[in-house]
Amino acid sequence: MKKIVIIGGGAAGPKTAAKAKRMNPNNEIELYTDEKLISYSACGLPYFIEGTVKNINQLIVRTPEEFEKQGVKIFLEHKAQKIIPDKKCVIINNKEVYYDELVICTGSKPFIPNIKNVKMEGVYTLKHIEDGIKIKEEMHKSKHAIILGGGYIGIELLEAFVQNGLSVSLVEYGSRIMRVFDSEFSDMIKNHILERDGQWIEMHFLEEVQEFFADNSGRFKKLKTKSGLEIEADFCVIASGVVPNTQLAKDAKIATGITGGIIVDNTMKTNMEHIWAAGDCTEEKCMLTKRPIYIALGNIANKEGRVTGINVSTEPENYEKFEGVLGSAITKYFDFTIALTGINYENAIKISDKFNLQPICTTVVKKDKAGYMPNSEKITLKVVADKKTGKILGAQGIGVGDVNKRINTVTSLIQSGLTIDDIFHLDLPYSPPYSPAIDILITAAYRLKSQMNSEEN
Amino acid sequence: MKKIVIIGGGAAGPKTAAKAKRMNPNNEIELYTDEKLISYSACGLPYFIEGTVKNINQLIVRTPEEFEKQGVKIFLEHKAQKIIPDKKCVIINNKEVYYDELVICTGSKPFIPNIKNVKMEGVYTLKHIEDGIKIKEEMHKSKHAIILGGGYIGIELLEAFVQNGLSVSLVEYGSRIMRVFDSEFSDMIKNHILERDGQWIEMHFLEEVQEFFADNSGRFKKLKTKSGLEIEADFCVIASGVVPNTQLAKDAKIATGITGGIIVDNTMKTNMEHIWAAGDCTEEKCMLTKRPIYIALGNIANKEGRVTGINVSTEPENYEKFEGVLGSAITKYFDFTIALTGINYENAIKISDKFNLQPICTTVVKKDKAGYMPNSEKITLKVVADKKTGKILGAQGIGVGDVNKRINTVTSLIQSGLTIDDIFHLDLPYSPPYSPAIDILITAAYRLKSQMNSEEN
Repeated sequence: MKKIVIIGGGAAGPKTAAKAKRMNPNNEIELYTDEKLISYSACGLPYFIEGTVKNINQLIVRTPEEFEKQGVKIFLEHKAQKIIPDKKCVIINNKEVYYDELVICTGSKPFIPNIKNVKMEGVYTLKHIEDGIKIKEEMHKSKHAIILGGGYIGIELLEAFVQNGLSVSLVEYGSRIMRVFDSEFSDMIKNHILERDGQWIEMHFLEEVQEFFADNSGRFKKLKTKSGLEIEADFCVIASGVVPNTQLAKDAKIATGITGGIIVDNTMKTNMEHIWAAGDCTEEKCMLTKRPIYIALGNIANKEGRVTGINVSTEPENYEKFEGVLGSAITKYFDFTIALTGINYENAIKISDKFNLQPICTTVVKKDKAGYMPNSEKITLKVVADKKTGKILGAQGIGVGDVNKRINTVTSLIQSGLTIDDIFHLDLPYSPPYSPAIDILITAAYRLKSQMNSEEN
Repeated sequence: MKKIVIIGGGAAGPKTAAKAKRMNPNNEIELYTDEKLISYSACGLPYFIEGTVKNINQLIVRTPEEFEKQGVKIFLEHKAQKIIPDKKCVIINNKEVYYDELVICTGSKPFIPNIKNVKMEGVYTLKHIEDGIKIKEEMHKSKHAIILGGGYIGIELLEAFVQNGLSVSLVEYGSRIMRVFDSEFSDMIKNHILERDGQWIEMHFLEEVQEFFADNSGRFKKLKTKSGLEIEADFCVIASGVVPNTQLAKDAKIATGITGGIIVDNTMKTNMEHIWAAGDCTEEKCMLTKRPIYIALGNIANKEGRVTGINVSTEPENYEKFEGVLGSAITKYFDFTIALTGINYENAIKISDKFNLQPICTTVVKKDKAGYMPNSEKITLKVVADKKTGKILGAQGIGVGDVNKRINTVTSLIQSGLTIDDIFHLDLPYSPPYSPAIDILITAAYRLKSQMNSEEN
């Protein structure tokens, strides 16, 4: 029997708690969060705002009551102030809480760019349930919104706002949206969005926001960028990415890495004895390059929480391991899917010397089903491989067709170290409502194979 | 430069021809078929009958004219009568045609059960374009149809007929439909079909049809089974599976295997010098068990045709290989997907001694997307693995939700030899419109892992 104290109630904390209790019902488990809620799906918030998800309670995975019933003690609105590793103690709401094992699941927080007057009424970030509720209310009484940032959350909010009849100005610091993709994919995504909804959306690139301006009541009225661009709007959402929430850990000298996340080994241990970390506050390892990478996604937090919950309850010989990520991600703009896994071509070129790679790639445009099926739709798939070994390095897919299936399949190809030749031999199930006789993945393999066999470098 | 003669115009023949011509434009290529058409998608015929595919010409992949333009000579309605390997010659329409390389792509033909008066007006099989046209005409003037056989074609025709307002009697020789699945999956598929459309459909199992009866005009009127069951209907389709079409090959002493298909090595060579075979007339190898298996599917025929087209045009050191199949397949009954790959649990048990397997399995029922997304749908996924090695042996999936994606992913897991542990580490892309935070595949891996760790056998 151990006393396990968990700080944080997003995805990883509750998962850790539930698993640790199931591993050993005698474990005494306390979960502390400074929020009013635990165990909710933050990834669902854009769909709550949009109205696809009607009731905010649907995003709650498990209530505090359910946890209490299982024997996990939940402390809402309890702020962890300081960890004292030597005393195996955390100061929470000014009281000392002792632990045998401590799990830090403090999650992530929105990255806030350096903007003058950045905090004012009418300016939001999207992270917590309350943010979602407020943005939804704001949206329903507004006509024009600004979104700062063209990443995943930016695109998902764009869908939500357009669906609800708003016009939107998207302001991006970089030269393109969805910068985890290769440039031409960013362009294709942008073109699709503007072709569909160009009358409601304007996009501004390479614009660094300098200052927010308020109206007489102190409410957001407009922004101004370094280049002099001024945009008025009813409200503004900052969607410039997230950063790991690590102040508590850093203050206790728990090591953080190059990405800012807490460093953990593959058992989810930090550098401090009896202190573990899981979820959006940690740094991950890319399974392909073995380099640090920062991924703040609910599925990863869940996996890390599961491994942590097992390991805090067991002996080293029974430890489970979390081996890392590929950086897989997916989102959509209405019916247009945007997905990727592994390394894109531009990054593959950048790291090619260091990792002794000779990146090749092919982009195939093809129907997702047999072309004669009336619901078949176009998809564009780019597959990146290493010419030297034939190994698959990554894939990017976009389109109204079933992109999702192909990217899912490529994740397992990458993780298993399969080669271009192996793709050809993949016996993917075929029938006209599901795939062309020669699947787009197989076509990509044919083309990469030709490049492998060609003399040129 | 070689003269390459191809017998058969379905999927493998035209693919071989096109690839062989592209490999070396000097190759002289002649394709002979006893049909009036070449290069069509037979798998699309049920959807043409249903009306989803409006025009039969949509099923034509490439016309004879397109092939002729490419320099491939097409001979329609030319029947190959005899192969004389010693003379490197085929008798076609009573004339001698000489070859350097001969490719047999004679495809498959419907299996016809031993039924008295089996040939009469109003009784059909579904294999060729003309069959599809005739059945569609028949369907439009009928109220009640009989389908003999509850396999893929049977289920697809069932959908087509119900969609067009017919009532259907499905008569199955075995004890269940979709016998490539485990029994309980057959039952779930049957239950789904009958729950949806029970007022239009009756299913009869363990019924061996003995005799067909005609009306005064000689047209099908009713059938009678061994047990005494009599069913009247406007017409009857025999959908009792297909068998390889190998008489031409057998007459020339070309070896066929235990499944009835022509035996080829992994370069698609038969046992006779300069004679190759590809497509539905050949026997495949199961990549998992290395045992012979017979698969008649357009995607496999295409792959085999591609490999054959390359190999007949090149030297042995450049041969491509076709390594085999997993027996992956997919179909649907309206929005209900039915898919599998690899070995089912019942078969795994049967072969466990011979292959030193200790099969375990788990069945997970879960939503395909985040549960709070209003379009999330249930899927049922069964994954079979070997307890000794942790390797994945197969998976079966059914449901209105996105089954297809999961089965596609499992095919690559099987082919790469990944284990249950590896599934847990699969970084499948996640967002609420595409997957729950913990994908059904990951849940299956958790459960199989528990079984691996348990003491029991």
